Amino acid sequence: MTDKAIRDVVLISTGMASEVIAAYLDRFSDLNVVGFTVDRAYMPEGEYLGKPVAPWDEVRTAFPPDQVRLMGPPTFARLNTFRRDRYREGKAMGYGFASFIHHAANVMTDDIGDHVIVLDGSVILPRTRIGNNVIIWCDTHVGHHCTIGDHTFMSSQVGIAGGSTVGEECFLGGQAGVTHGVKIGDRCAILNGANVVGDLGDDAVLVGPPATLKPYSSARVKRLL
Amino acid sequence: MTDKAIRDVVLISTGMASEVIAAYLDRFSDLNVVGFTVDRAYMPEGEYLGKPVAPWDEVRTAFPPDQVRLMGPPTFARLNTFRRDRYREGKAMGYGFASFIHHAANVMTDDIGDHVIVLDGSVILPRTRIGNNVIIWCDTHVGHHCTIGDHTFMSSQVGIAGGSTVGEECFLGGQAGVTHGVKIGDRCAILNGANVVGDLGDDAVLVGPPATLKPYSSARVKRLL
Amino acid sequence: MTDKAIRDVVLISTGMASEVIAAYLDRFSDLNVVGFTVDRAYMPEGEYLGKPVAPWDEVRTAFPPDQVRLMGPPTFARLNTFRRDRYREGKAMGYGFASFIHHAANVMTDDIGDHVIVLDGSVILPRTRIGNNVIIWCDTHVGHHCTIGDHTFMSSQVGIAGGSTVGEECFLGGQAGVTHGVKIGDRCAILNGANVVGDLGDDAVLVGPPATLKPYSSARVKRLL
Repeated sequence: MTDKAIRDVVLISTGMASEVIAAYLDRFSDLNVVGFTVDRAYMPEGEYLGKPVAPWDEVRTAFPPDQVRLMGPPTFARLNTFRRDRYREGKAMGYGFASFIHHAANVMTDDIGDHVIVLDGSVILPRTRIGNNVIIWCDTHVGHHCTIGDHTFMSSQVGIAGGSTVGEECFLGGQAGVTHGVKIGDRCAILNGANVVGDLGDDAVLVGPPATLKPYSSARVKRLL
Repeated sequence: MTDKAIRDVVLISTGMASEVIAAYLDRFSDLNVVGFTVDRAYMPEGEYLGKPVAPWDEVRTAFPPDQVRLMGPPTFARLNTFRRDRYREGKAMGYGFASFIHHAANVMTDDIGDHVIVLDGSVILPRTRIGNNVIIWCDTHVGHHCTIGDHTFMSSQVGIAGGSTVGEECFLGGQAGVTHGVKIGDRCAILNGANVVGDLGDDAVLVGPPATLKPYSSARVKRLL
Repeated sequence: MTDKAIRDVVLISTGMASEVIAAYLDRFSDLNVVGFTVDRAYMPEGEYLGKPVAPWDEVRTAFPPDQVRLMGPPTFARLNTFRRDRYREGKAMGYGFASFIHHAANVMTDDIGDHVIVLDGSVILPRTRIGNNVIIWCDTHVGHHCTIGDHTFMSSQVGIAGGSTVGEECFLGGQAGVTHGVKIGDRCAILNGANVVGDLGDDAVLVGPPATLKPYSSARVKRLL
């Protein structure tokens, strides 16, 4: 049995985002979520979403690597290092990882790594390289001739213009933007709405422009809207 | 005849946005727009878009509640209070209200109120509650485990991250963003491009960050683009 | 043979964006890219993407106007003047220009000019006029009752609210926004993330709000994300 023939999947983590991915897989893929795995400290009482949960240190016994593939955790927790480590540990235990590209995403490159999730509405243009263990949430745009490094997480409505490079283990928050031809280092945290207009070194934190809270009630703008 | 079996719809208002919704219903739904209704002061001469128009104070005579359902007005005028009042008045007159979820929207929750409009490209993730009389325009993202209050209007390309709450009668302008886990009160006006990064009380007005007009002609940037 | 029956297309320019459009046409249209044309100074050695390339000053010999239509260049280079000039020169040589509306764009107006490209996820609402030689990249929203002038280029995730006018030869960068009812002149450069909230005269340059680079490493935000 080849790896890709394994349709049974165990999701790493029982957090809220795992529930989202479980719903996506159930509605939009031919993968079957057969269980979950979490750190022993976070084990729920009984099942999660009606499926068995195994502690990570016993996952091989509960869900052998020749019977299931892993996915997740679908989270940027600890700036993607948790996700990176689980991916490496899972591979070391002999697991394959499944990918999920939503049918309403438009992925125009074949240069896609292992264990990649792309949700609906996202577009990835030609000549772009997506690394391993990358998550791209909804309605995100990755332009042409870009490179997205391993373990990077892109939220919804992010826009990366053509010819740009994003390093490994980066987080891009919702509506973040990257102009064309820039280079972003590893482990950067580009928060919601931040617009990258020039190169960024490793470990940068970029915060979006603040909105202004007006010192009057919305009753005042009723007629202007 | 059950309420949901009524496919004939009367749109409230003859404004520009009503024309948009009429076009959506015509192309993408099995609802039939059979007429319009407006305040007597705004009655057009003759028909509107080739359909009869009744003044609101005579709508029951022209379009009896056992024959049609209402929709609209698809506008945030007067910070959604006009829309809220029409909804309540219509219900009091015995009308049902129709909903329209575009087939190219991805609504992954069943916890949706009465009279909800969601246009194409919008995504609503699991475990989210959408109230009554909510309008969500195009390409808007509502994350998981969110709550959107009654009578709220979300424009296009709005992004709400997971676990956030938006109150009742709020307006979110185009490209507005809300980070995860925040709570927004009632009647807030969050204008175009404003990014909400913390809790907001009732009646807040939040304005997006200003762009900068450069003191030179675009002829100067021709070579840089 | 009528103009629209010509399915063979020659793309102007051998730049990166031409490769993108060639890929779109190949996957999503019934047009056949049979070659490319560039200024003689930029002629490649041999073919481009496996297709012949003709210098622009000999394009009529290599690809006669009764056998092919032209498209492109799909670029805003020199603030769209290069594209505008090629379009005029091509028309003067007797060429027709092909349009491409992606099937996953939702164009709800018939008032569309000649040689228009609209990529996937973009929405154009009713009663809007799109001029000639306009390019609209992915996931861009053009509201109702708008006018978009000839030769204008809109990048991805741009949002134009209802009732607004954009002049000729404008460039709107990714995630740029235009509020409702404003008027933008000709040759404006509205860069990434800039939000237009009032009228703009001709030749304006508008720059989006800057993000803030924090003076600490992303290691510090690991626990906050």
